[in-house]
Amino acid sequence: MIKSRAAVAFAPNQKLEIVEVDVAPPKRGEVLVRIVATGVCHTDAYTLSGADPEGLFPTILGHEGGGIVEAVGEGVTSVEVGDHVIPLYTAECGQCKFCTSGKTNLCSSVRATQGQGVMPDGTSRFSYQGQTLYHYMGTSTFSEYTVLAEVSVARIPKDAPLDKVCLLGCGVTTGIGAVLNTAKVEAGATVAIFGLGGIGLAAILGATMAKAGRIIAIDINPEKFDIARQLGATDVVNPNDYDKPIQEVIVDMTDGGVDYSFECIGNVKVMRAALECCHKGWGESVIIGVAGAGEEICTRPFQLVTGRVWRGSAFGGVKGRTELPDYVARAQSGDIPLDVFITHNMPLADINKAFDLMHEGKSIRTVIHY
Amino acid sequence: MIKSRAAVAFAPNQKLEIVEVDVAPPKRGEVLVRIVATGVCHTDAYTLSGADPEGLFPTILGHEGGGIVEAVGEGVTSVEVGDHVIPLYTAECGQCKFCTSGKTNLCSSVRATQGQGVMPDGTSRFSYQGQTLYHYMGTSTFSEYTVLAEVSVARIPKDAPLDKVCLLGCGVTTGIGAVLNTAKVEAGATVAIFGLGGIGLAAILGATMAKAGRIIAIDINPEKFDIARQLGATDVVNPNDYDKPIQEVIVDMTDGGVDYSFECIGNVKVMRAALECCHKGWGESVIIGVAGAGEEICTRPFQLVTGRVWRGSAFGGVKGRTELPDYVARAQSGDIPLDVFITHNMPLADINKAFDLMHEGKSIRTVIHY
Repeated sequence: MIKSRAAVAFAPNQKLEIVEVDVAPPKRGEVLVRIVATGVCHTDAYTLSGADPEGLFPTILGHEGGGIVEAVGEGVTSVEVGDHVIPLYTAECGQCKFCTSGKTNLCSSVRATQGQGVMPDGTSRFSYQGQTLYHYMGTSTFSEYTVLAEVSVARIPKDAPLDKVCLLGCGVTTGIGAVLNTAKVEAGATVAIFGLGGIGLAAILGATMAKAGRIIAIDINPEKFDIARQLGATDVVNPNDYDKPIQEVIVDMTDGGVDYSFECIGNVKVMRAALECCHKGWGESVIIGVAGAGEEICTRPFQLVTGRVWRGSAFGGVKGRTELPDYVARAQSGDIPLDVFITHNMPLADINKAFDLMHEGKSIRTVIHY
Repeated sequence: MIKSRAAVAFAPNQKLEIVEVDVAPPKRGEVLVRIVATGVCHTDAYTLSGADPEGLFPTILGHEGGGIVEAVGEGVTSVEVGDHVIPLYTAECGQCKFCTSGKTNLCSSVRATQGQGVMPDGTSRFSYQGQTLYHYMGTSTFSEYTVLAEVSVARIPKDAPLDKVCLLGCGVTTGIGAVLNTAKVEAGATVAIFGLGGIGLAAILGATMAKAGRIIAIDINPEKFDIARQLGATDVVNPNDYDKPIQEVIVDMTDGGVDYSFECIGNVKVMRAALECCHKGWGESVIIGVAGAGEEICTRPFQLVTGRVWRGSAFGGVKGRTELPDYVARAQSGDIPLDVFITHNMPLADINKAFDLMHEGKSIRTVIHY
């Protein structure tokens, strides 16, 4: 049992408390990781708010980290002490029906227990003053020391800066991957990106990497437009500047609609608009944002019968252990400028400020340094 | 001006009247076709019922025909008098943005005027006692003589029996094409087909042609099950035999869901079930049925974010002039057993009986012989 500084969510809709928790050693097939830095993502805030019906408390949130392996349990062969890793909320076992399908990154190996806030053996490694704390998304990067399943860590080169590439553990990879892996945007295509948070901005970057011909960035906050342009947006649109529905605005701008659209907010009305601004015959819309509990997307089926396609993307369709190292390499080569996404850096003690900045729309990503 | 026997829909929700109409000669880019036989399809009944918001009256319905070119207008080069043809409600000009995209069969060349019930020059070729009659779907095969745009006819071999291959003008091609062209079902795949009318049965046939490993046929009318099995269904399911939602039944039967599903009814609730019975990570659902005016499909976005894909298909994604002749060849070779679909044959005078049989669920297709 080791002591670890952690930001604990004791109850929904309360501030995180910085305390010293107890972390049990890794069991068979598990690794102990010292987190060096972690991003703070909207999904953490969603669960903390209490709106997530699957949220469990008390828990240690955080899923966008970078760290160093400190110990390994029995049978662990793919990483060793001293390896640098990115925790994966989407595991990759390489052996389940999903991993071997060649069609998806949604590994099922640890899914059930991860959703229950425990390790694969059904128990937690975290406790505080004798009280058990739940794991979160299989990662819990808001603890300096965390325990993960071996299949939930991607080994990366030791020269990659952990306080930057941690962002590849969620938002940046999710946005880029949705464009490159899920939609497979081709050179010259016309693309619309709805919502210019971290994921939407990463999707713009992905479209730029794909050499899309036109990249339309859409947000009701015009303060996001400069950075959108910096990442490659060719057009910026504020829906509040128009009387008609945004899908009609985009269709009119593009002679019939876009080839690909991406919803990066989690708003079901925007998901509909994103589908309906696609070009008849071939336009594809990808849902990335996570909607509120029980919310539903709707459209007229005619939208699909006339050739539009509606799909979704989780972690950008990226397989963590086999494909994420390539994203790290692209960050190191400069193709993925992570610095653009990091608007704030602060110590763990200030983590509640990071949530405040996010809620106020003032940050893209805050990186917490241990 | 020539005289033609026709079944005219003078007003919504009334019997068709068999009368002699006047047909004006084909103008530039148009052809006069003598229809030899025509199927009667649910879409004709939908428009006749008055529920179709785009329905125009008085009109000559019918869109599943086979005929012989009797005259051509100026500038027509792709067909000549005596050619056998299948009228196309989905034209193929080969030159518009859609035709040249390589991504869709939804040609735009005559779309606007076709929807308005007139020929591309904005006028009708049909009249009855001096009153103008609207064209329907650019085809109006319920008239012995009909005028079509040159881009709306597919030339086929003269030895193909018109009173059978007429079914390739809509239902049979739509079902097979949705499986082969739109979904691209691969050998060994698990497939669910919802609704065993003409299109659903054709989709089963398409799945058999694709060598799908398991073909699950679903209908609340068990009388359809024998023919479904005859066409290749490996499982038949009546949702009324279960207390739980049909999507759960199918997911349980298939260890997690099907690889592909097809909605062949036009019921938005079934469209949802068809999506939700797809396998997480890769299952794709194709909407073929036409829903009622204003009806909407809904689901939780989580269904898409976890890897399911929702798409649609019109005329099976088949390009009429370039690809339909291959379907005719496959019918002649026996790969597409059209006789299975033809449950009734009757003369034009009895066409209202064909609608009655369809409404009573007693026919798959009735072929009307002129």
